Amino acid sequence: MTTTTVPADSVGIVEEKTFTFAEDEPFCLESGATLAPVTITYETYGRLNEDRSNAILVCHALSGSAHAAGYHSADDPKPGWWEDSIGPGKALDTDRYFVICSSVIGSCYGSTGPMDVNPATGKPYGLHFPVVTIGDMVRAQVRLIDHLGIDQLLCVVGGSMGGMQVLEWAAHHPERIKAAIPLATTAQHSPMLIAFSEVGRQAIYADPNWNNGDYYENGKRPDAGLAVARMVGHITYLSEESMQQKFGRRLQNMEQYGYEFETEFQVESYLKYNGNNFTRRFDANSYLYVTKAMDYFDLAQPTGVLAAAFLNSLDVKFLVVSFTSDWLYPSYHSKNLVSALTAVGADVTYLDIKSSWGHDAFLLEVETMTHLMGDFLARLAREEGVELPEIGEIEEIGDWALAV
Amino acid sequence: MTTTTVPADSVGIVEEKTFTFAEDEPFCLESGATLAPVTITYETYGRLNEDRSNAILVCHALSGSAHAAGYHSADDPKPGWWEDSIGPGKALDTDRYFVICSSVIGSCYGSTGPMDVNPATGKPYGLHFPVVTIGDMVRAQVRLIDHLGIDQLLCVVGGSMGGMQVLEWAAHHPERIKAAIPLATTAQHSPMLIAFSEVGRQAIYADPNWNNGDYYENGKRPDAGLAVARMVGHITYLSEESMQQKFGRRLQNMEQYGYEFETEFQVESYLKYNGNNFTRRFDANSYLYVTKAMDYFDLAQPTGVLAAAFLNSLDVKFLVVSFTSDWLYPSYHSKNLVSALTAVGADVTYLDIKSSWGHDAFLLEVETMTHLMGDFLARLAREEGVELPEIGEIEEIGDWALAV
Repeated sequence: MTTTTVPADSVGIVEEKTFTFAEDEPFCLESGATLAPVTITYETYGRLNEDRSNAILVCHALSGSAHAAGYHSADDPKPGWWEDSIGPGKALDTDRYFVICSSVIGSCYGSTGPMDVNPATGKPYGLHFPVVTIGDMVRAQVRLIDHLGIDQLLCVVGGSMGGMQVLEWAAHHPERIKAAIPLATTAQHSPMLIAFSEVGRQAIYADPNWNNGDYYENGKRPDAGLAVARMVGHITYLSEESMQQKFGRRLQNMEQYGYEFETEFQVESYLKYNGNNFTRRFDANSYLYVTKAMDYFDLAQPTGVLAAAFLNSLDVKFLVVSFTSDWLYPSYHSKNLVSALTAVGADVTYLDIKSSWGHDAFLLEVETMTHLMGDFLARLAREEGVELPEIGEIEEIGDWALAV
Repeated sequence: MTTTTVPADSVGIVEEKTFTFAEDEPFCLESGATLAPVTITYETYGRLNEDRSNAILVCHALSGSAHAAGYHSADDPKPGWWEDSIGPGKALDTDRYFVICSSVIGSCYGSTGPMDVNPATGKPYGLHFPVVTIGDMVRAQVRLIDHLGIDQLLCVVGGSMGGMQVLEWAAHHPERIKAAIPLATTAQHSPMLIAFSEVGRQAIYADPNWNNGDYYENGKRPDAGLAVARMVGHITYLSEESMQQKFGRRLQNMEQYGYEFETEFQVESYLKYNGNNFTRRFDANSYLYVTKAMDYFDLAQPTGVLAAAFLNSLDVKFLVVSFTSDWLYPSYHSKNLVSALTAVGADVTYLDIKSSWGHDAFLLEVETMTHLMGDFLARLAREEGVELPEIGEIEEIGDWALAV
């Protein structure tokens, strides 16, 4: 057995937990449809303090999962998706905060989604899974937080689709959070964002193996379509500048043009690798559901005025961050959000961070984000009088405490 | 029979002509491969003056063709692709200039391409068609200009891939042109441009009907993949702002979300319509060849210094135009080009035009482009002492004169 040395600044070996609800009474969705039962997978890192006031909920983006930090085993080659920001001494300092991350419903990492068996038919839901919204995802998270016995989260944080969930918490569950950190996100998917989502979906629909969503039992998955969808996504996560730096016009394993259609440029190789890789860890139907949830997201509704969404959010403290080279969720989205928050008199700090990393900057600008989020949380804990645990003061709380 | 009234400012009814060369001696391509014979389809508008000095070559973009202006019949519902800029009194004033437009080799509008029969096998080329470059396309155009008896073009003009051809003329055939107008283009495809090309190609490869390019004879075309490729393209031709104006978050034929995966947003409907429409007029293999030619385009090679490409172009006058909201070929491409031209002492006028239309601006900013190109051409004709024909002074020159 290979034993990898887990880095000292990691939360270490973690395990995924599950929580199931709506076993008796169905969970009502915004569409009017219902789900029953609903399972949520989640992980926690760090320790909850005595009055349960140091909990931070991390919301993941399109392709993310509950596995935000740590390793699933000693020989796990890869840590969770936000390892850079969650751990002892990191932005979300697990020596001080109790960090929770759950997989969204509709996706494919254990929380209820289209891959699961539909109790009504005994077969996988496929396209019979109801369309879920960001609001539905967040209401499922509220149920998880209830289950964990936490009245109020110190903070909800996330980037991209995770940021939408953060804003949903702030707008519709403001009494359950003290602060919100929406990163590289929007309160309203723009037509360009919808267009990119739709192209990804069309690539999946175009794959005959997709078979109208009914492919779980026939052994033929719409991998080709899903890979194309992911390639489109990957372009939008980078910036021109970062692509120039990473790839330029360099060729892959060749000195000169081959004058054929094999992969030749490094950027082609990168896209193809990531597209194919994605099909090994993601589900095509989930891609449809999760992108649809993002497209539907529009906090300005039903009034048409975004500020109206935050009329009850005056006690929530906001740290809004955008990145100058993010052309998928350009800074104007965050500026519109900040205007709306300012209009209702909310406590909002906004930074438009100069970065060349494009949309991915919220994951890659680690040093900047560590200072920014760390300082914001420290201010918050101080202002809110939150008792942060001392190192060594470990409290085990039922079966959901961190198994280190 | 329906008779449409052709607008007075149109060149009117036009017809496509063909020119075939390399029947005896094969046409050598940059790859080292050869083609024989090579056919070029082209159209001409306006009248050539006596000393054949008023000819303007228009180069088309990815999906364009020789049919740049006018109508193919009295009941033709749609004019050529640059009707707004070619015609009497327009930017390329057919009362003054003789305008030529030809279809590029490798594409699917009559010039030799992968749909054609391979004389060696008696079957359509498919992927046996050799990879062609922008340089090859332009050398085929040179042969056409030779055939038309024109020693020197007054100007070569085009946007996007058309602009690459313009730059290729200026760099490698400068003695054959007096001026060059590259619009919304680049001297070197960036990794982001290559990435978008590659995603389009991958969408085509992913379609089982593509069948490794061998689909012409089995009746099953890779329309689904080609449509996805085109949808990706369409997003990149627009700007965020133009998408907001055109579509916003408006729904198509419905009042509220349907909570299903049918097309719902207007922007989705637009993409789907254009994607499907494209499959009726374009060939998937041609899409591969033409995008590959663009990706290969890099005038900075072989030296690595762009200016070196223009060392022999000092007698060419340049009008370089970019558009502020064009994020596919952002202004920095044109600025790099202008720097290179300035470095070698070329006569260059550069404008970065404020526009909200994105890459499509070169086709849509009609009034601005009419003044800009019209004035540049007038200056050119004056400085170069070109005799422009008076109205009514029509010269018929063999079978390639305009059949009005």
